[in-house]
Amino acid sequence: MDKNSVGIVETQYFTFAKSPNEMVLDSGDTLGPITLAYETYGELNENKSNAIYICHALSGDAHAAGYHQGDKKPGWWDIMIGPGKAFDTNKFFLICSNVIGGCSGSTGPSSINPKTKKPYALDFPAITIKDMVTAQKRLIDHLGIKKLFAVAGGSMGGQQAVKWTVQYPDFIRAAIVIATTTRHTAQQIALHVVGRQAIMSDPAWNNGNYYGKKTPEQGLALARMIGHISYMSDQSMGEKFGRKLRKKENVSYNFSTNFEVESYLRHQGDSFVQRFDANSYLYITRALDYFDLTKDGKLADAFTNVKSKFLLIAFTSDWLYPTYQAKEMVKALKINDIDVSYIEVDSSYGHDAFLIENEGQARLISNYLNRIQKESIDES
Amino acid sequence: MDKNSVGIVETQYFTFAKSPNEMVLDSGDTLGPITLAYETYGELNENKSNAIYICHALSGDAHAAGYHQGDKKPGWWDIMIGPGKAFDTNKFFLICSNVIGGCSGSTGPSSINPKTKKPYALDFPAITIKDMVTAQKRLIDHLGIKKLFAVAGGSMGGQQAVKWTVQYPDFIRAAIVIATTTRHTAQQIALHVVGRQAIMSDPAWNNGNYYGKKTPEQGLALARMIGHISYMSDQSMGEKFGRKLRKKENVSYNFSTNFEVESYLRHQGDSFVQRFDANSYLYITRALDYFDLTKDGKLADAFTNVKSKFLLIAFTSDWLYPTYQAKEMVKALKINDIDVSYIEVDSSYGHDAFLIENEGQARLISNYLNRIQKESIDES
Repeated sequence: MDKNSVGIVETQYFTFAKSPNEMVLDSGDTLGPITLAYETYGELNENKSNAIYICHALSGDAHAAGYHQGDKKPGWWDIMIGPGKAFDTNKFFLICSNVIGGCSGSTGPSSINPKTKKPYALDFPAITIKDMVTAQKRLIDHLGIKKLFAVAGGSMGGQQAVKWTVQYPDFIRAAIVIATTTRHTAQQIALHVVGRQAIMSDPAWNNGNYYGKKTPEQGLALARMIGHISYMSDQSMGEKFGRKLRKKENVSYNFSTNFEVESYLRHQGDSFVQRFDANSYLYITRALDYFDLTKDGKLADAFTNVKSKFLLIAFTSDWLYPTYQAKEMVKALKINDIDVSYIEVDSSYGHDAFLIENEGQARLISNYLNRIQKESIDES
Repeated sequence: MDKNSVGIVETQYFTFAKSPNEMVLDSGDTLGPITLAYETYGELNENKSNAIYICHALSGDAHAAGYHQGDKKPGWWDIMIGPGKAFDTNKFFLICSNVIGGCSGSTGPSSINPKTKKPYALDFPAITIKDMVTAQKRLIDHLGIKKLFAVAGGSMGGQQAVKWTVQYPDFIRAAIVIATTTRHTAQQIALHVVGRQAIMSDPAWNNGNYYGKKTPEQGLALARMIGHISYMSDQSMGEKFGRKLRKKENVSYNFSTNFEVESYLRHQGDSFVQRFDANSYLYITRALDYFDLTKDGKLADAFTNVKSKFLLIAFTSDWLYPTYQAKEMVKALKINDIDVSYIEVDSSYGHDAFLIENEGQARLISNYLNRIQKESIDES
């Protein structure tokens, strides 16, 4: 454990929307009770003005930093969160929660449906990015925080961050939005379509009713493999694997794992199924595909009531969310005279660049947070 | 049928490598007898100097142009082949054959193994791009042609075309090489890995033994869907589908087909399984993944004995075989002082641009063939 780690952390749980006060979802359906798994790092200051909400990506969870007791691997954004790091826990109070629909402690399709006492499976209602944010707002209210210093996230986390600024304009000082889009394109939808189809084609999926039985491991692993190709870049895959064969002495023309990249993808798929629920994958990818911030196709109109400032980061080799999508958002924000800093980071790591050791990104964020902090003092 | 169609055509069959003269494959294994399904368009001239070999892509077949009796759809490159078209059948004799390992009339894993009297399935030996070309050369010998005027193809067809120039340097006057690469990168291998995994994960695949039983339709359809995403571009998908929902009046938050792009991909997958054999998909994609023209990583060294001229075409929006790969080949050819014309066509259609109505490509090819014809007369 490095000296800049937040150390040992524990996941906490917040339950709300209990009967008869279920949460009304974007779809009109209701859901309750809802539990959010969350973690916090750093200390909330006296006037509760130093809170930053960290939103996770498709396969993330509430465990963003530090170590769970006995674990060897830290949380998914440990490189960015800790004392002296980009999100400096000496200054800020960080909150990260697992999204609703998820499978890492928050209420999702694998949770028990109070009406049937069995897992929801496909009886779980449809959820959207808006619903994820609505639930996060409930947690913030519970913590007594009146205004977030910032909300931040990459990929799906970035979509939540943007949605926060639109949904609760008076509640956010700054949004740090990384490697994301304001609406999914046909290609992005297509990649998810194939992943969902892979899960639903697995006989073990059984129309979503596999809890307590054989799970659709093969389908979910396939979906993850497809995802992984889109998270890396042509260049990063080339540099990492090239055309390397797995065992030079054993080049067999068979259909087992011949290439290094094949072995890597299979490992990614196989390890993913140990920690992720296939139905959650269906629900969350659909939430992503339905995400569309534009109003009748006009993105600028979405930001008319927004009051927060923005730091936007995009990566040159990100082909899942190409930089032109970030630029569209910059333009729409500027049309509304919103303070936006946009940085295109030259990286070969593709979409996953935001998760990878990245000195540039860390400095951009810490500098930006310092600036916002200074401005907020000047303003007050 | 337009007036520039080659009209009604029939597939022909050529069988060779009969016992005890089986063909020795790249792997060292032998295969025989081998049948090639092929079609020809136009007339072979008296001195047999006007023959052009057309090589097909992964999912193609011998039926490149014209109509089979009763069919409404013409061959896969009908827009390019016919009287007055890019490959002008008034001037040239076109030959197109189904690759070995294929499933459209040529010997492949679904063919009967003479030793067992049952389909080969996975007893079919591994085949490579070199083996495909070797078999094509046997057909050319059979037709009494001493030198090809040209060899042409896109995608996997382009790989065969390049291989022809290396493998039979005295036999080719010109190669027309479109939307292809000289070796698969990790990303390209990865896309195939997932496709193969989808097939092998389908219980109906049954280790390749599904002939006469339920076929691995779902796995093969998934593989085709993944492929299709890589054949189109972000832009072409966006223009064709955008975020359009399939039925506006019926937006249901379920997991059925909600988006137009979803419906399209499913249709592509479902129609593919009607005409393609899953084991052939495994064998042919593996041949593509193993294709590597470089010698110890040096591409220029591969072309030292090449005598043909080259027309190379790449498409700006092709992300399966990006233009940088074509440029690498141009450089390697120029290092060997080989006559190469390289054109980067500005297209939004992605990899599939070479198959799509494309006035620019057609003129490039017809002009190039005219130039080669003129030069060959000047030389003689």
